[in-house]
Amino acid sequence: MITLYHCANARSFRVLWMLEELGAPYRLEMLPFPPRVLHREYLKINPQGTVPLLVDGETRMTESAAICQYLASVNAPTSLNVEREEAGYGDYLNWLHFGEASLTFPQTLVLRYTLLEPEDRRQPQAAEDYAQFFFVRLRALERLLEAQDFACAGRFTAADISIGYALLLARVLGHHERFGPAVQQYWKRLSSRAGFGRAMAVQDAAAARQGIQQLPTPGTGLGRRP
Amino acid sequence: MITLYHCANARSFRVLWMLEELGAPYRLEMLPFPPRVLHREYLKINPQGTVPLLVDGETRMTESAAICQYLASVNAPTSLNVEREEAGYGDYLNWLHFGEASLTFPQTLVLRYTLLEPEDRRQPQAAEDYAQFFFVRLRALERLLEAQDFACAGRFTAADISIGYALLLARVLGHHERFGPAVQQYWKRLSSRAGFGRAMAVQDAAAARQGIQQLPTPGTGLGRRP
Repeated sequence: MITLYHCANARSFRVLWMLEELGAPYRLEMLPFPPRVLHREYLKINPQGTVPLLVDGETRMTESAAICQYLASVNAPTSLNVEREEAGYGDYLNWLHFGEASLTFPQTLVLRYTLLEPEDRRQPQAAEDYAQFFFVRLRALERLLEAQDFACAGRFTAADISIGYALLLARVLGHHERFGPAVQQYWKRLSSRAGFGRAMAVQDAAAARQGIQQLPTPGTGLGRRP
Repeated sequence: MITLYHCANARSFRVLWMLEELGAPYRLEMLPFPPRVLHREYLKINPQGTVPLLVDGETRMTESAAICQYLASVNAPTSLNVEREEAGYGDYLNWLHFGEASLTFPQTLVLRYTLLEPEDRRQPQAAEDYAQFFFVRLRALERLLEAQDFACAGRFTAADISIGYALLLARVLGHHERFGPAVQQYWKRLSSRAGFGRAMAVQDAAAARQGIQQLPTPGTGLGRRP
């Protein structure tokens, strides 16, 4: 049985969404954010203090986009996976990584320096620099989606889950006001999926049961539901 | 024939190193850094202005860790790849992503805010925050390498190339002074490989031929050779 350590609306949401899309059995361990501060025992399980942590037998993984790829691959055949023999294989890997390294990491700086840090440690210039960094990459996504409905292979795959989380975080930060029309439509396609809805419902129910605060959600109400 | 767009010591070094390890034929397009400023025609080829760009027939990829995985996979069987049937498959994907998202991105902030930006735009606090972020992840790498010689699967793979570039960047930034003994030994193992040496030599020769400036290299002389 897979165990997923998760904080509401953190990167680990990718994995929760992936598990719900696959219909795979799992055990959810919901933690307050940030766990290294609010749930220090977690450092014994994951010394980095980060989520996600996925435990699947002997396999332990902490990188959310890598976990999506792993789950797609070990559950193959599934339409969520792209096999190396398919024409879209390079695109699949590229957008899967792009969703994290190019679209999510820059936004985590904005989150940190506009919301999470105490007032006297906020860094407006760095936050602005990396918002701009994100907007440049967002234009690459817009260009892609002007020509197709999903990131690759003509269907919804784990790469869309990787990108989809970046768009969810964009909504938390108000960056969705800069979504072009193609990205707006794409977000509607992703967030109206049954698997996305189930993952949100599971997360909300677990957070409510444990009285856990969600990530800050100015403006959008995203902490509850996008 | 594969074409690689590359800047000296940038993330695209991962791909160059990978190609040399594979012994695969390729054409190298060496660009000054940053290309979006110093070689604006490049924006017609890659509107993001980033390196690497790999062109392999219809496949175009811009994420360096994804490209390493792609090259390992489409050139399989090769010891550089880890197949999903192997016990180390989850570790392979995790460390491949970790090398970029957790070990490299934070250091690019340090590079930007201590060296690349003009003096009046430097951000010492953000640079220090993300140096610390890197050091926490570096400890996870140290723990791993206390028990084994390579990231996964008991051998040198594309995941080591992903991590190896983060260590090269650490040397550029002086972060190598915080390497623990296991990471120090690991860096020696990686940087003494024939494939690494060939990639450095190819890069140096192309940069010299075109009179191209390398990334800043305080202290270590890394712009020339680590």
